[in-house]
Amino acid sequence: MAEQFASKRNIRFMLYEVFNAEELTQYEFYQDHSRETFDMIIDTVWKMGVDFLYPLYQELDKNPPQFVDGQAKVHPATRQFMRMCGEGGWINANWSYEDGGQQVPLLITFVNSLIMAAANCGLSGFPALTTGAANLILNFGSQELKDLYLEKMVSGEWQGTMALTEPDAGSSLADIKTTAVDTGEGYYKIKGQKIFISAGDTDATDNTIHLMLAKIEGAPPGVRGISLFVVPKYRYAKDGSLERNDIWCTGIEHKMGFKGSPICTLVMGENNDCHGYLVGEPHMGLSYMFQMMNEARIGVGIGAVGKATAAYYDALEYTKQRLQGRKPSQKDPTAPQVPLIEHADIRRMLLFQRAVCEGGLSLALQLSKYVDLAKVGVEPEKHELLVDFLVPIVKSFPSEYGILSTSAAMQCLGGYGYCQDFPVEQHFRDIRIDPIHEGTTGIQAQDLLGRKTTMKNGEAYRLFMEEVKRTMAEAAEIPELKPQAEALAKGLEVMDDVTSYLLKVRKEKGPEEFLADANLYLEMTGLLAIGWQWLLQGVVAYRALQNQPSEGDTKFYRGKLITLKYFYTYELPKVNTLAHVLKTSQGLTANMDISLFDEE
Amino acid sequence: MAEQFASKRNIRFMLYEVFNAEELTQYEFYQDHSRETFDMIIDTVWKMGVDFLYPLYQELDKNPPQFVDGQAKVHPATRQFMRMCGEGGWINANWSYEDGGQQVPLLITFVNSLIMAAANCGLSGFPALTTGAANLILNFGSQELKDLYLEKMVSGEWQGTMALTEPDAGSSLADIKTTAVDTGEGYYKIKGQKIFISAGDTDATDNTIHLMLAKIEGAPPGVRGISLFVVPKYRYAKDGSLERNDIWCTGIEHKMGFKGSPICTLVMGENNDCHGYLVGEPHMGLSYMFQMMNEARIGVGIGAVGKATAAYYDALEYTKQRLQGRKPSQKDPTAPQVPLIEHADIRRMLLFQRAVCEGGLSLALQLSKYVDLAKVGVEPEKHELLVDFLVPIVKSFPSEYGILSTSAAMQCLGGYGYCQDFPVEQHFRDIRIDPIHEGTTGIQAQDLLGRKTTMKNGEAYRLFMEEVKRTMAEAAEIPELKPQAEALAKGLEVMDDVTSYLLKVRKEKGPEEFLADANLYLEMTGLLAIGWQWLLQGVVAYRALQNQPSEGDTKFYRGKLITLKYFYTYELPKVNTLAHVLKTSQGLTANMDISLFDEE
Repeated sequence: MAEQFASKRNIRFMLYEVFNAEELTQYEFYQDHSRETFDMIIDTVWKMGVDFLYPLYQELDKNPPQFVDGQAKVHPATRQFMRMCGEGGWINANWSYEDGGQQVPLLITFVNSLIMAAANCGLSGFPALTTGAANLILNFGSQELKDLYLEKMVSGEWQGTMALTEPDAGSSLADIKTTAVDTGEGYYKIKGQKIFISAGDTDATDNTIHLMLAKIEGAPPGVRGISLFVVPKYRYAKDGSLERNDIWCTGIEHKMGFKGSPICTLVMGENNDCHGYLVGEPHMGLSYMFQMMNEARIGVGIGAVGKATAAYYDALEYTKQRLQGRKPSQKDPTAPQVPLIEHADIRRMLLFQRAVCEGGLSLALQLSKYVDLAKVGVEPEKHELLVDFLVPIVKSFPSEYGILSTSAAMQCLGGYGYCQDFPVEQHFRDIRIDPIHEGTTGIQAQDLLGRKTTMKNGEAYRLFMEEVKRTMAEAAEIPELKPQAEALAKGLEVMDDVTSYLLKVRKEKGPEEFLADANLYLEMTGLLAIGWQWLLQGVVAYRALQNQPSEGDTKFYRGKLITLKYFYTYELPKVNTLAHVLKTSQGLTANMDISLFDEE
Repeated sequence: MAEQFASKRNIRFMLYEVFNAEELTQYEFYQDHSRETFDMIIDTVWKMGVDFLYPLYQELDKNPPQFVDGQAKVHPATRQFMRMCGEGGWINANWSYEDGGQQVPLLITFVNSLIMAAANCGLSGFPALTTGAANLILNFGSQELKDLYLEKMVSGEWQGTMALTEPDAGSSLADIKTTAVDTGEGYYKIKGQKIFISAGDTDATDNTIHLMLAKIEGAPPGVRGISLFVVPKYRYAKDGSLERNDIWCTGIEHKMGFKGSPICTLVMGENNDCHGYLVGEPHMGLSYMFQMMNEARIGVGIGAVGKATAAYYDALEYTKQRLQGRKPSQKDPTAPQVPLIEHADIRRMLLFQRAVCEGGLSLALQLSKYVDLAKVGVEPEKHELLVDFLVPIVKSFPSEYGILSTSAAMQCLGGYGYCQDFPVEQHFRDIRIDPIHEGTTGIQAQDLLGRKTTMKNGEAYRLFMEEVKRTMAEAAEIPELKPQAEALAKGLEVMDDVTSYLLKVRKEKGPEEFLADANLYLEMTGLLAIGWQWLLQGVVAYRALQNQPSEGDTKFYRGKLITLKYFYTYELPKVNTLAHVLKTSQGLTANMDISLFDEE
């Protein structure tokens, strides 16, 4: 295992040089914070990563959760970690003082998420899910629900979950069958089954609080009939004590990776006694869920970046140390072997990883800052629209390219990369879940092309373009970055052209053909968004180099510039191919006869 | 698990409609064969796949080899399978009657390899390695070696291995340190260590025969000093009985996948008593190994196709059955859900898999036929050059794109694809070894661009172009295929242009910059080669459709044409991007300062 799983230098660069985190402290909500408090938070989490999380990374994979006597048993470190998160205030760090939080910007807590995911993605899921569940109660629940559940959740004593998926309803949430019947006594009776529920049962906490989607009897069909409930494993009895609720874990899935966290099947109401408590208004469940979904999806993107980053540092360390072969120009077989990193092909793979990881992180933090600004009332509509537009990209790009990136890390290690001596193979397995959970890449693609590009008359799309163009204009004034600024400008033109073309397809050919290649559209937009973030980093790095930085910083900034150049040379040109396919596929997949897949 | 792991209909199409296997029976060596004997062979192996191999696929993964009491213990089915292969004559089916074989063309035995790898890649490695080792003895060993070892190897009683890699010599074989000292008594004393030796120790057979590279004392440095030895686990004593040789397995690796076969560390000569027997002439070891390497590398390519194909059939079955969501045009949420395959994005992923699997198989069988023709003296120089040129592509394209293909299969299954309920996740883990073993993709790329494109004054390259152009000319006469023929023609022009450019780089900038992006050149050439094979299949399918085929056949041929169209629409355009990068990267990775990867 490499000693490093992420880069503190890069985190500093992102927070203070690119995204100006300190600027947030001018707003009342964040006014008690400063670069010092931000650093203290990050140093604390970093230390937890180094001392606690990373040393347990492979151990959790080798000792996955077990289903014993009707309960999911997880690694004992999980209980310890949840309490550490509770005590550190990490579960609700973003909340207001009033609600018990520390008013920390998302920009900072997402850096925490990065560190935790890079060090141990299996463990990091537990507090993240609890945060998501607690956020739903905080934002949409009654005062009673808040009083009864939040304290124990944010202290890490109770686990939170998001219980959406059912046997016949994964991507298609409209089809959930879990029902809720109002008893008139302050609770609903819940009946149904949920599958693939992360941390859906655990012995690491004393209770599990499910934020569950169900349909109230007589609700309208489809997504407009979904309500949100709190369904606890142990519910409050009338005397205030806790009693077992009628919700049972009937099994856990055996996954390829991401093994730290159990994925559970849950059955509710087998004895007709599962109590659920409505959150907010009836039939508003999906709407509530989606308002929280943005942060969850940014979290998946950050998590993917984390895994890919840890794999990158393994590859970097290995290729610097491992001697293998000679340069092609060295014809003397008695000359000493050189480190792998001396080979151009290895550097290409390292630069690819760096471009994906640092580009992906940059985009995710860009979004976090938009959320933070919106929260304190700085052009909230604009910033929320930008977040809406970019969320599917932040969720998908690091997930999909992160798989390629960890695969490249494995390739750098050769045979050793395929073996369990190094954690790279685990990262390769772990990251593969990211294009699946919290909405598959296909779902993100439909969201981007089918909703986000045209929402509010294309305003989100226009704002995205505007943001990119502002960075382009800055870069264009720096002769060294002008070629990249121009390449990005051409990329945006291509995107405009393709978008217009597709909107015409929608009008003339209908939604099937319009959306058939949404995945390619998502990838194209992702490349442009990452290109934008590299240009943004490039401008900062270029300017920093003008101020006689230290030798170490000089290397760091020059490293940024060469990675930028790598991205623009090797990756951005894919935009043209994707655009070409989008404009020439003519509904091939939408219109084909599926019997052509049949065989005698 | 799907009932199907490969397609007999497609195998028939490939063998009898595209590659005209029967044509081979006109040559004396194959004259006893006929379509009937070919079918009998394939049906027998298919039955073994269905009845024996496929049902054990997941079991072997769950019960990987153990290292117990100094020996690698494998799944008991391995012994049974090796004997089945011995009794069936599968280990040496290609050999002449004189040598005990059945004179079966490679075109047929590689179909056997496909079936075995698709059904159970872990088990299929054992006989394949034995074939490779036995081939080396047969082709380069003395009569004595042949008499002593071959019978037991081809009967499946003794395992064969290829023992190349060492701790400091993986891709760089020039650096092996294992030594051989001639005792003058008919054997050498071997000393050293080997790592990552597949099937390097096993209790499934009564002996293990290593075909091992070592350097004879005083040999010239580098690859010209490598010799090949037979190093048996049990050697013949003077009285003809077997006695333990001084070669010991000291451990096995724990791999991410491909778990059926143990990967072993071997130590030779710890007690200064490891006997090895020289194969052929001293210092010719690597040359012998490379003469056998072509078949081994085609085998890796076929194996990757097999795994990806099995995953494809899982995805196909699942997406036909699993109901999820509605088409975008269906706005009524009470309308019934549709099977996943109704969604365009799912079809795109299925067509991608089919394009990779059936295109990859086609290219591998194309090469097999070249080998078969060369063997019976039909334009041997031409066919051998074509094989030399295409081997790195046949090895790498299915390995690299096969990972993407199994990943797409997993995505089709969503959350279930990530769990062990279905074998897709195992295929995803298993196939990841293919770009690593038998020469990494990086090594294949250097081989293609650095050697094959220019060998014999570019003759191999020219012959490849000629073959593709012949298919193009046929396709151009069919109006329905003309656009694809023209696209391929343009692709070849691009390749010519890039190749000339790179040769100029070699001259002006030297080998580092010339070879820096060899991987991209390999991918570009791979896409063109697969495009060629799809056009070849398209011509056959188109013509067959003119003869009023049955309803089932009509679907099959139309399925071929839509997959061809998919490949030309979605995949071939990548050639342009790759070419663009190859012409604009300007040695970025070759010339960069590696300290830019450093961090303070």
